[in-house]
Parts: sequence; structure tokens; C-alpha cells
Amino acid sequence: MSELKNDRFLKALLREPVDVTPVWMMRQAGRYLPEYRATRARAGDFMALCRDADLACEVTLQPLERFDLDAAILFSDILTIPDAMGLGLYFETGEGPKFRKPVRTARDVDTLPIPDAASDLDYVMKAVSTIRSALGGRVPLIGFAGSPWTLATYMVEGGSSKDFRAIKRMLYAEPEVLHELLDKLADSVIDYLNRQIEAGAQAVQIFDTWGGVLSTHHYKKFSLHYMEKIIKGLITEHEGRTVPSILFTKNGDQWLELIADTGCYAAGLDWTAEIGEARSRVGYKIALQGNLDPSALYGSPETIRKEVSRILKSFGYGSGHVFNLGHGIALDTDPEHAKVFVDAVHELSEAYHNC
Amino acid sequence: MSELKNDRFLKALLREPVDVTPVWMMRQAGRYLPEYRATRARAGDFMALCRDADLACEVTLQPLERFDLDAAILFSDILTIPDAMGLGLYFETGEGPKFRKPVRTARDVDTLPIPDAASDLDYVMKAVSTIRSALGGRVPLIGFAGSPWTLATYMVEGGSSKDFRAIKRMLYAEPEVLHELLDKLADSVIDYLNRQIEAGAQAVQIFDTWGGVLSTHHYKKFSLHYMEKIIKGLITEHEGRTVPSILFTKNGDQWLELIADTGCYAAGLDWTAEIGEARSRVGYKIALQGNLDPSALYGSPETIRKEVSRILKSFGYGSGHVFNLGHGIALDTDPEHAKVFVDAVHELSEAYHNC
Repeated sequence: MSELKNDRFLKALLREPVDVTPVWMMRQAGRYLPEYRATRARAGDFMALCRDADLACEVTLQPLERFDLDAAILFSDILTIPDAMGLGLYFETGEGPKFRKPVRTARDVDTLPIPDAASDLDYVMKAVSTIRSALGGRVPLIGFAGSPWTLATYMVEGGSSKDFRAIKRMLYAEPEVLHELLDKLADSVIDYLNRQIEAGAQAVQIFDTWGGVLSTHHYKKFSLHYMEKIIKGLITEHEGRTVPSILFTKNGDQWLELIADTGCYAAGLDWTAEIGEARSRVGYKIALQGNLDPSALYGSPETIRKEVSRILKSFGYGSGHVFNLGHGIALDTDPEHAKVFVDAVHELSEAYHNC
Repeated sequence: MSELKNDRFLKALLREPVDVTPVWMMRQAGRYLPEYRATRARAGDFMALCRDADLACEVTLQPLERFDLDAAILFSDILTIPDAMGLGLYFETGEGPKFRKPVRTARDVDTLPIPDAASDLDYVMKAVSTIRSALGGRVPLIGFAGSPWTLATYMVEGGSSKDFRAIKRMLYAEPEVLHELLDKLADSVIDYLNRQIEAGAQAVQIFDTWGGVLSTHHYKKFSLHYMEKIIKGLITEHEGRTVPSILFTKNGDQWLELIADTGCYAAGLDWTAEIGEARSRVGYKIALQGNLDPSALYGSPETIRKEVSRILKSFGYGSGHVFNLGHGIALDTDPEHAKVFVDAVHELSEAYHNC
């Protein structure tokens, strides 16, 4: 493997000194870029793009051509695991993901197989190794997976949901069935992320997009517990380097102390959190990633720089911060504004390092 | 007016001693009740039901016939104000509310009238006085309105939204236009709630359903500021009694101290908050209302009682707690389970009072 030329992102996750604050954007390879839309049109549909290692590599690298990003992230979807379990993932135009065979009963859960990531999800591993090789050490590559709770919401609801009625019903009426499902998912995610690491992922992020719809005692039992199991099952050293893990529970600000205790290297923050307060609560234990409101990119370049400056000031001096959006970049974002954002992070953060 | 026979709810909001913890349910008059569905079918559509004082009164009282509730809440909708501003509210089957004329430009905001609640919204005031009279002092009647920020999201998006792109764009690109809109809405809500109080509402709740999608500094400027303006403009004494105000920002747990400083009498908590922690933060200043996960009603009677018991224990001894769900009751809730919930609150809370 080529030597890593820009390791700011990995260093910041380990809270080691950096020259400027590293930055990447959730969903940085995506629909707001015309070149992405062109590649996707060539691929056919979204899953075809995920399954083709060369095309997945192409879109992963597109934002790096435009912006001075400090990390690349595998182009894929969190629902590859339920798809490999045989649930029949499909996407309808204008709607979210759906499953032909949702998980509803104890029997559905009992008969659910744990995929063998190396064979059942070999297309993902091929994408990882293809991207890693194409990066040539330019920036590190992030692998990822959904949290067991988040994957379970899609599997039980049969797709996206507004109120999570089906899975909440399962949680309150048949908690043991849900636990069995979550445990299978945790085992699947461990294998999936470890194979990504072996294929070339240099850090991993767990997306717990829907942990925030739980009450605290249920968050601990039904989401955090299984993420902790994953963290403890992950390869932590590869190619002579630490492989840091980032845990991102959207709307999970109030549980930062609990998240910091899982053994992860960093917590993702959405834009509703105050990063300075978050740092004072857990910054002595873990790094923080975030947390610009993606909608701030609708503002003028001056507004964007002001918001970046506010967050940098709130975090304060020293390492331990990976700048990011608090959620995926919106599809109607002007790419020029994304550039203003990325450049502002590097330019305005210099004063907070090497002092 | 008849003498108030059950004033537990009002006393708890003032943190005065009560025999048991009072309880009501957000959306307690609603689709989960077959008798509601029958009345609504007779009315035609949802807004026709809101506009007919006798039918609105009928559905308001329905849950009180079934459950031992400590308060009634006006049957209406938060979008009556934008409707009275001429935006053309309508409901499509299976979808949320929509506006024929969304607010998009500075000109749209400039030309927006502030409704005269007494005349433009007289059907609401008629519903309030009809319900108050029909209650005959059985329990107090709650009036309500949406927060300016929450109303503005519907007005600018043209209906419900998942990602609030249009209003966030306005917030970041034309903040002064949004401020003008919010200020008009605050003035409208003050007039609207004061007329409800004069018509018979004995407490008022402000629903800030979407304040939680803002970052802290924007929550202060674009949501809380205008709710504070409303609180300061409200009638605080009527018929010789204090008229307490409840401010409910969903997903606003982190801002409780700020909410407590507005001058409101109570804060609503969704189910993600720990009520014991909330009490230790602001319980010396305001009362708290909440916070059972509405989905807990999907569980068995034993599960429901366990959850009620957990919340009562978390809040602890003494007054200052109005039990409620953390969000509106779900339409597929078994009414028998709602009864288990209400009875459990009264039965299990006795031990926390008079000691």
C-alpha cells in the first residue's frame, strides 16, 4: 500500500497534534454533484452503483477532485447487510429504501441468516480495495455500517419511517424478539466492518441515525449496548496503524458520556449540539466530529465562514476535532458553497493549532 | 362559570400540593377512539370538525367519558392562524396539512395580515366557550397555539417537511425576512391565546414541535425569543385564577434552562428526556409535563404500569409534575391501554404525595 500523505484525519481522531482541523462531509459523494448524477445515470440505479467497484470508486473520488477534503468515505449504503440477509432491498423513485420481506415476527428473526461478509458482501470489499488503491495514499479511507438499532428500524418497518410504530411495538410488546434481531445484526456488523478494515478501510464509522428516537433507558439497552459490542469486536490495529472508530447517534447529544464509555475513538455530533460543551463533557476521552448544520451551506460565503468560525471557536484550541456537517449534505447544495466550507475550515482553524 | 371540581392539573402547574399526579394525553381526542372517528365522519373533513363548535365540543369531551383525565384540551389545530392569514389550509387524505399559498418571499411576508382572533377566528372562541360550558367545572380546559417557528415551518415549506429545506434556506440566506414573519406570528399568537383565555381556557400550551431541528444559537433567536415574547404578552390572571402557560419544544431537552427563563409555568418533555434530571435542572423554577413514550401503550398493561412507575420514581416526591405522553397518542393505540395508563398514574403516584 502507498504511504499515507495526509493523515490529519486519523491524527485528529487520536487527538494527536495536527496543523489544521481536518474536514470531510457526510454524503460528500452524492446527488448535489453533477458528475455524481452522470455516473449514477450510467450505472442505472443506486444499488447497481454500489455493486460496481469501479463506479463506486469513481463517485467516491469525485468530491476529492473538487474539494480539499481530508478523508474519503466508501460509497455504499447501510442497508447492504439486511439486503444480504435476504430481505430484498429496493429503491422506489422519490421514496426511501424499501424491503420486500420486512421482519415482523419471532419466526422471521429466528430464520434470519448472519451473512458471511467476505462472500455475501464481496462487492463491498472489492469497492473498498479498489478505492484504497485508487487513492494512492492521498487521504485515508473510511468504512462504515449502520448501527444494529438503525438497521432494525428499516427491517421491521419495511423501509423509512416517521414514527417507528412497528419497531416500537416490537420493543414494548416483544423485547426479546428485538434483542435477538439486534444481536444478529451486531455480529453481522462486526464481521462486515472487520472485512472492510482488512480490505483497506483506515477508520470506521457506525451510523446510528435513529438512536435518538429512544428514551434513555431504551437507548442504552437497544442501541448503545449493541454498538458497544461492535466496538469491542473490531480490529483495532491494521497495517501498523490504529483503526479509529467513530460512533454517530443523531439526536444523541445527551448521551455523549455513555458513548464515550463504549471504547470508540470519536463521537459524531449533529448540528443541535454545542461542540464546546460536548468537548468539556467528553473531550478528555474521545475526539469529536461535526457539526455544521448542512443547511448553513444555503447561506452566502460570508455566512458559511461565520458559522465555521463559530464552531471552531466553540471547540477551541488543540486537536481532537474532525470538522464535518451534522448530517449528510443536502442534494440541492451548491457545490461552490461546499468548497467555501472546506476551505474555510482549513484557513480559519490554523490559529487553533501549533500555538 | 361553574366552580372547578378538579383543580389538580392547575395546582401541579403552580407546584402547589396535590393528592395524586394529574394526567392528560396530548391528542387525547383523536383517531384512536372509535367515537371520534364516528363524529369526524359526520362532520366531513377535519377542518369542518374544528369549525363546528358543537362537534368540536363533542370530541373534546369523548376521552373524558372513558378515562379519568385531569384536563380537557380544546379540539382544534395549530394551523388555524396561518389559515386565517389567507394561506388556504387543506388536508389531503393520508398526507399531512398543506397550504395553497406558501410563504416564500419578502413580499409574501410583507403582505401577510395579522388576523383579528376575535373575528377571524371566532369559530375557535366559540368552541372554547361551548366546551368550557359543557365541562361544567369537571376539569380545567387547556387552550393552545403553535409556536411562531413551528407555524412558520408549515407556512414556508407549504406543509409538513422532513428536512425543512425551504425554511432553513430562508434562515441562512434571508434571516431578516424570517424574523419579520416570526414577529407577525408572535403577535398573532398573543391575540389568539388571550382571546381563548377570555373565552374560557384556564391554561395554555404552546406547541413548538419543530424547535428541535435548530442549533442552539438559532433556537434562541428564531424560536425561543418569539415564545418569550408571547409568554410576556399573555393574560396571566382570569376569573381570579392564574392562567399557567406550558411551553413544549419537542427535542428541546437540552434547552430546559433557557425555557425555564421565559416566564412560562411549565415545560413539556418528550420521552427522550429523563424527567428526574430535568427536575434537578429546572424544577425549582417551573413544573414539568410528560413524558411517557406514546409507543409504550403498545406494551402489555404490566409494561405500561412499569413505565409509569419508572417515570414517577424518576420525578420523585412532591408536586410540580403533570403526567402526559411525550408526544401525541398514536392512532393505532388500544383505548383500553390508554385507560391502564391514566389509572396507573393516579394509583401509583399517591405514594409520592402527602408524605
